[in-house]
Amino acid sequence: MDNRAIGMFDSGIGGITVLKEVKNLLPNEEIIYLGDTKRFPYGSKSKDTIIEISRQCIKFLISKNVKLIIIACGTATSQSLETLKEEFNIPIIGIIEPTVRYIKESVKNERERIGVIATSGTIRSGQWEKKIKEEVKNAQIINEEAPLLATMAEQGWISNKVAEYTIKEYMKCFKNIDKLVLGCTHYPLFEELIREELKNNTEIINTGTKVAEFIKKYIKDMNIQNDESNKEYKIYLTDLDNNFNEIAERLLDDNLKTKIEKAEI
Amino acid sequence: MDNRAIGMFDSGIGGITVLKEVKNLLPNEEIIYLGDTKRFPYGSKSKDTIIEISRQCIKFLISKNVKLIIIACGTATSQSLETLKEEFNIPIIGIIEPTVRYIKESVKNERERIGVIATSGTIRSGQWEKKIKEEVKNAQIINEEAPLLATMAEQGWISNKVAEYTIKEYMKCFKNIDKLVLGCTHYPLFEELIREELKNNTEIINTGTKVAEFIKKYIKDMNIQNDESNKEYKIYLTDLDNNFNEIAERLLDDNLKTKIEKAEI
Repeated sequence: MDNRAIGMFDSGIGGITVLKEVKNLLPNEEIIYLGDTKRFPYGSKSKDTIIEISRQCIKFLISKNVKLIIIACGTATSQSLETLKEEFNIPIIGIIEPTVRYIKESVKNERERIGVIATSGTIRSGQWEKKIKEEVKNAQIINEEAPLLATMAEQGWISNKVAEYTIKEYMKCFKNIDKLVLGCTHYPLFEELIREELKNNTEIINTGTKVAEFIKKYIKDMNIQNDESNKEYKIYLTDLDNNFNEIAERLLDDNLKTKIEKAEI
Repeated sequence: MDNRAIGMFDSGIGGITVLKEVKNLLPNEEIIYLGDTKRFPYGSKSKDTIIEISRQCIKFLISKNVKLIIIACGTATSQSLETLKEEFNIPIIGIIEPTVRYIKESVKNERERIGVIATSGTIRSGQWEKKIKEEVKNAQIINEEAPLLATMAEQGWISNKVAEYTIKEYMKCFKNIDKLVLGCTHYPLFEELIREELKNNTEIINTGTKVAEFIKKYIKDMNIQNDESNKEYKIYLTDLDNNFNEIAERLLDDNLKTKIEKAEI
């Protein structure tokens, strides 16, 4: 048993899609969420910068006495996880490994066509393609950079005409694929528009669901569950001046007034 | 007389809207353009980062033996010009001063309503509002952050449905204004859509035109004109893998094959 909280961070609102899944699957776990809204977006920053700001986020969460850390951000996972997990003793889990593990278990044939949509930084890191091919050697990967989507989500434009036509454009290369990985945690906010556009049997993979399943098994295997029940979550933001609350409240179906605090990093 | 080139830089394609105006007004000047496509976008980067990368761009242009430097980028002008003009001996001109000078000369009354649309970094720097109010004390400034537009331009989405609806959204706060400053050099690419949306007598200010007029007067006053005729321009990019050529060729009505080279910075 370990009643310390689970820590997680993202550049902004995106990781809330992960928080939601973890909270649903692990209601007894306390969660501390850090949204680095001041330095959003991560997707267009250099690898060195992302390593440095991820390091700061991890240190902040460690100062809050968490038992493990989820990098609930596609860009930070692809650019900084490998470096930072060597630096810290605490378990750090990104969104790629849990998702790739699921893909490995669920592929029906070795030549499945798997789409990955993510920020420019993530796609150019090549991490998704590399990790998927390590497990499903003959998979055909279709990569698409979507430099606009995270910013659009952060602006609260998730169902207007701009979002609709942007999704139409980005989905053009994903006709006739088997699975589509939403490689940035902001993208589940557009899931309905994506589903409508693909209009077929493509499986849309929300990495938050896969992370939650992975963490559930992990804390059970490690015997570090919280033995109390129905624990709360707490949100820290590095900049409070944004559209965070409105979208987060809608996503979590909760009033966040007492749950959000400014983080000085 | 000074037959050295004029240097200019931007984070990408945006500054080409300035190059175009300078080339039209000063056909005898040689121009060296640096597009820092590798580190695009600047709009969401920190002030320290922008100062450092602008410094590198200026050093690159100085190494090409230019006689003056235009920061053909709204974000770099607002975040780094004040610091960097102290560091270098060469004249450095941004897009704000020439535009504000024009506004000062052209306002019809002291209480004109002036809109400014720019990147988040530029708007938050407060530079446009500060500089305009220094010259037109009672002007009413309406600021709007447009975090999507530069990326959209860089992707080549300048007249599709996404661009159309994005402009519609961003123009909502600019009804009934007298002047609209396009505070990022990428935005003249959307000028037609903006004009259509405003559908009134708002004057749309392309900063490139104002910079060109300012430079024309400046090099005459300083007696540093090029005394040859019809000089060429040369473009350097820090990353060649992008949509730059297509848009730049359309803007400049020119075949750029022999004019673009990779810059190692």
